[in-house]
Amino acid sequence: MPATERGPRPRRATLADVAALAGVTPGTASKALNGRGRLRPETRQRVLDAAEQLRFQPSAAAQSLLSGRSWTVGLITTDSIGRFGIPVLLGAEDALGAGRTSVLLCDTRGDAIRERHHLQALTARGVDGIIVAGRRTDPRRPLPGPMSVPVVYALGPSTDPGDISVVSDDAHGVHLAVRHLADSGRTRVAHVTGPEHHAAAAARAHHTRRALREFGIGLATGRVHYGEWSETWGRQAADIVLRAQPDCDAFFCGNDQIGRGVADALRESGHRVPQDIAVIGYDNWEVMALAARPPLTTVDTNLLEVGRTAALRLMDAIEGSPHHGIESVPCRLVIRDSTGPSATS
Amino acid sequence: MPATERGPRPRRATLADVAALAGVTPGTASKALNGRGRLRPETRQRVLDAAEQLRFQPSAAAQSLLSGRSWTVGLITTDSIGRFGIPVLLGAEDALGAGRTSVLLCDTRGDAIRERHHLQALTARGVDGIIVAGRRTDPRRPLPGPMSVPVVYALGPSTDPGDISVVSDDAHGVHLAVRHLADSGRTRVAHVTGPEHHAAAAARAHHTRRALREFGIGLATGRVHYGEWSETWGRQAADIVLRAQPDCDAFFCGNDQIGRGVADALRESGHRVPQDIAVIGYDNWEVMALAARPPLTTVDTNLLEVGRTAALRLMDAIEGSPHHGIESVPCRLVIRDSTGPSATS
Repeated sequence: MPATERGPRPRRATLADVAALAGVTPGTASKALNGRGRLRPETRQRVLDAAEQLRFQPSAAAQSLLSGRSWTVGLITTDSIGRFGIPVLLGAEDALGAGRTSVLLCDTRGDAIRERHHLQALTARGVDGIIVAGRRTDPRRPLPGPMSVPVVYALGPSTDPGDISVVSDDAHGVHLAVRHLADSGRTRVAHVTGPEHHAAAAARAHHTRRALREFGIGLATGRVHYGEWSETWGRQAADIVLRAQPDCDAFFCGNDQIGRGVADALRESGHRVPQDIAVIGYDNWEVMALAARPPLTTVDTNLLEVGRTAALRLMDAIEGSPHHGIESVPCRLVIRDSTGPSATS
Repeated sequence: MPATERGPRPRRATLADVAALAGVTPGTASKALNGRGRLRPETRQRVLDAAEQLRFQPSAAAQSLLSGRSWTVGLITTDSIGRFGIPVLLGAEDALGAGRTSVLLCDTRGDAIRERHHLQALTARGVDGIIVAGRRTDPRRPLPGPMSVPVVYALGPSTDPGDISVVSDDAHGVHLAVRHLADSGRTRVAHVTGPEHHAAAAARAHHTRRALREFGIGLATGRVHYGEWSETWGRQAADIVLRAQPDCDAFFCGNDQIGRGVADALRESGHRVPQDIAVIGYDNWEVMALAARPPLTTVDTNLLEVGRTAALRLMDAIEGSPHHGIESVPCRLVIRDSTGPSATS
């Protein structure tokens, strides 16, 4: 429903228009506008007058032709759903956008054909570098190379150890959680997590076993309970664990959805959280952790910081100082009502 | 931890380098590479040889200097959390990225100073147009003008009816939900929603009253229950409504979190969903709607389509055919287990 009528917008003046009006070549016009090259003062003035008359806005494109840098970086995300990729992306945008670098967003939806299309477009635009934000923490193959610009892999590292990758430090996050359980007197901790073939599940389980040994705490039921990243699995797993080991006094869960499901099942089966059994989640996905009853203590994976760090490492690499290998960003434990002193300790 | 040593990358060749090697001006080099202008064949060949020798990649920047279009659009989001803004953004990226237009992402985090900074950067880059993706459905003031390029407002419309806005059709979504309740024999429907000063809550409440009248259905308790967009409020509101009107046979909720809270409270107070009481949510936020017990029937607001449509309208406007006013994208009812025939009807 048109509300008002507006005329067509005037076409924006180009460098070629300015050059034509001033009677010089586009190259000369460019030099005059950028204050570079040897030009007679009257030529430079004629170009500046033409630019003013045409309301020419010196564009970033003109700058980049002369500097060889486009002051743009490509940000490739494979995560349409946005749960993990988007915070990484926003962290990178935050670090880059505050300066003079702009961010070209590409969503590949995990599709190889879309990835090639976007890579060609980014190359044609002459980006100075590329950040690849993973969907999960699983390592991924490098972009098809050779790349003419630096690439940083964020969240999901490259399988090539010579590439530059920035990830969240799972070992650190798990250590914070297990130490907190040890401090509150828990001695029989169940570990319920996602599919074993997901790096996040396998790595967190590995680190959990090691941290429990370090603090002299037992793994309830003697094994890790792999399943799905869902509340439903959390509810089921709570029943399975408590049937096998009724004196389990804590659940450390591989994500917040599982943690929430565990907390629901415990409440509905008459266990008090945290007095009888403590629950810790992972991710600090606030909408999930805060809505749990009680709100979940959880490991914050610092994804915004992962994105910010990836952006800084990309700038380093563009300026000739790449940090090859995998850099891990520390986690943070967020303590809420699902943990605390044990009633029996 | 450096894994391999790599030498510094060679500086990318610029148009100026090619021109210097060929002994021509940058303007002549540009004409030769773009196949434009009148040049002697040997001059053109000299430039092409120089470009090949330097492995010069003709850049988008060079193209845009000649065409006056940058083939980029700015995508401004105000939504750091990403719940609503991100699907709109991905829809727009999907529509634009498939063609030759690239997307410059800017996140203002709802901050006016960041918005000005990003607007300046987008102007300097010569974007062909801008999409502003809102955080909520509330109307927003236009970008500080006058804008030299077209702007489309997505999700949250501009307060200026002469601007171009694309939104999700609340009236349509509400109508689908209420008709579904009428079809399944419900006659006393409660409406529980978010804060009255949010456009989404007020608009959906207005449309709910009208649709209930149209289908000859009563509004349980005689009033709309405004509160927060949270599960906690959903649980509280279910108790409030059932104390005031125990024979209420359906809850239509302003979002899925409220719907999930209502479903939890009903289950915990011994009501069967949907046999005794039906529940419908809004948004189709899958992680919330699917995890509810039972999974929620809900209105899908089609935010990806809102984003896609905004991108198409922006391209129309850039090409000189703007559609002024507010365009509404239809919703979709997703039927799950929280609705169905009433046991008493």
